[in-house]
Amino acid sequence: MSARILDGLSLGRLIQEEIKPEISAFSNQYGRQPCLGIVLVGDDPASEVYVRNKLKVAAGVGFRADLERLQSSTTLKEVLSVVERLNQSSVHDGILVQSPLPKAMGPEAAQAVFDKIMPSKDVDGFSPTNVGLLVQKRPSFVACTPAGIIELLLREEIPIEGQRAVIIGRSDIVGKPMATLLLHRNATVTVCHSKTVGLSEVCRQGDILVAAIGRPGFVTTDFIKPGATVIDVGMNRVTDPATAAGLLGEDHPRLALFRQKGSVLVGDVHPRVIDIAGAMTPVPGGVGPLTIAMLMRNTLNAAQIHVSDIT
Amino acid sequence: MSARILDGLSLGRLIQEEIKPEISAFSNQYGRQPCLGIVLVGDDPASEVYVRNKLKVAAGVGFRADLERLQSSTTLKEVLSVVERLNQSSVHDGILVQSPLPKAMGPEAAQAVFDKIMPSKDVDGFSPTNVGLLVQKRPSFVACTPAGIIELLLREEIPIEGQRAVIIGRSDIVGKPMATLLLHRNATVTVCHSKTVGLSEVCRQGDILVAAIGRPGFVTTDFIKPGATVIDVGMNRVTDPATAAGLLGEDHPRLALFRQKGSVLVGDVHPRVIDIAGAMTPVPGGVGPLTIAMLMRNTLNAAQIHVSDIT
Repeated sequence: MSARILDGLSLGRLIQEEIKPEISAFSNQYGRQPCLGIVLVGDDPASEVYVRNKLKVAAGVGFRADLERLQSSTTLKEVLSVVERLNQSSVHDGILVQSPLPKAMGPEAAQAVFDKIMPSKDVDGFSPTNVGLLVQKRPSFVACTPAGIIELLLREEIPIEGQRAVIIGRSDIVGKPMATLLLHRNATVTVCHSKTVGLSEVCRQGDILVAAIGRPGFVTTDFIKPGATVIDVGMNRVTDPATAAGLLGEDHPRLALFRQKGSVLVGDVHPRVIDIAGAMTPVPGGVGPLTIAMLMRNTLNAAQIHVSDIT
Repeated sequence: MSARILDGLSLGRLIQEEIKPEISAFSNQYGRQPCLGIVLVGDDPASEVYVRNKLKVAAGVGFRADLERLQSSTTLKEVLSVVERLNQSSVHDGILVQSPLPKAMGPEAAQAVFDKIMPSKDVDGFSPTNVGLLVQKRPSFVACTPAGIIELLLREEIPIEGQRAVIIGRSDIVGKPMATLLLHRNATVTVCHSKTVGLSEVCRQGDILVAAIGRPGFVTTDFIKPGATVIDVGMNRVTDPATAAGLLGEDHPRLALFRQKGSVLVGDVHPRVIDIAGAMTPVPGGVGPLTIAMLMRNTLNAAQIHVSDIT
């Protein structure tokens, strides 16, 4: 038996297609495109890739996307003033500050910046107000990765209500909002983390298992209830040949890619889990494209809120 | 074997004693007592009892407590304007609006009122900002009942880290903040509710079991892992003699009380659970007094924040 592959790439594209007519209707009605302001501080290579991808998708669906690029020597105060300008801007509907911020800005900088984004433009859903509204099951901007996972489960008609859902990882960006969203959909939700005792046994109780820990191939077959739906949020770049071969297996087609490029992206879930899971997201092409699709949907919502606030 | 009884009444009093010197120091330093504004709308008999109790404890520890009493015919707009006045007040440090509000005000009224309370005076921790800050593990006002339960577990030296904690109920006031607090203390947390399948089996995984559902004696011995710590948040008034006798047993001392008063308070946990649990909170005298003690601590914190904002 081999798990059904949950194709996030196709669903991400489908969601983009679905929102295009609304974006175009917005642009016609208000004489301007919905606009996302992206703030990128410094020159982290991974952030460059993420931001480029967001800009490309945004343009593709019909948004205007403005990139505010700041040098890594920028102070927190300067970043906050850029955010404040975007808050006040009548054309910017959504604001996204790419993390991580440069280490020199200190460990509290990212949250200080997220706090500064006005909740009605906070398309990443990281401000405390949006987090609180989500917990209270009220309209809010929901963090894009867990929102995308719910969308995937719904579209793939994977039951949630009454199912045991187990989440590994308790980050503010994935684990915690994921738990809240699954709870709102009536799953019985368990959150695991680095201090969990008997982790594989707890995970084996999951009809739905979400892995968001950032350790390549950590979730092995013994974590999996046979037939479970496994969602892999990890995006780990593996550069060690032995690790890559150990994870992918000697005959894996992506090992050729590794030999060519010197690195390969591997999720938190071991590839062999495919033999025991009922359904599974691939890495890449699983959760990643859904995250971006949800960002687009949040931006459209922000634009609609923005014009209704003004008019 | 009989469970150790976790005496919330004594601990509640101890916490009151602990904060008295701080309250008195505050009053000396600032020439006024810390002040809690309580808004009571209508004439719900249970609310009358709760508010009277809060006023009494507040006075006992050295607070000024102002009761704003509004008729049940009051409009939402009027309640909001009272809250706004308390928000602006330089002497009121904390604000509490007793729920439930009169039904005629509509189902959204309570949250609209909680939203109006400024986060720095929101001693109940019900505003979305405080809920979000709690989830993000940042300083915030935490809902008093779950905060009191954590305090009890810590003082009784009941381990939390690495333990399985199971919560029955997912209310904004108890279940959800309880899950967050236990997660922050490194428990592996499962939230159950009305749609949970195999509830008793899931509950039996809990080293710590918190019941907050509002159904008298619902949690029976088959829900309990032998030796588990059982926290009973329920406060159900039972008036039917057969139900009371069935729950308490014919030889229970509180059955005499029932015969005398015509009603008895019973928790969500069946009294016979005492035979299998390792430790257990009684009803009454368990979680209730801790809730009030935490309200007092939150009010003191609010006062300290208030003066630091002004000075």
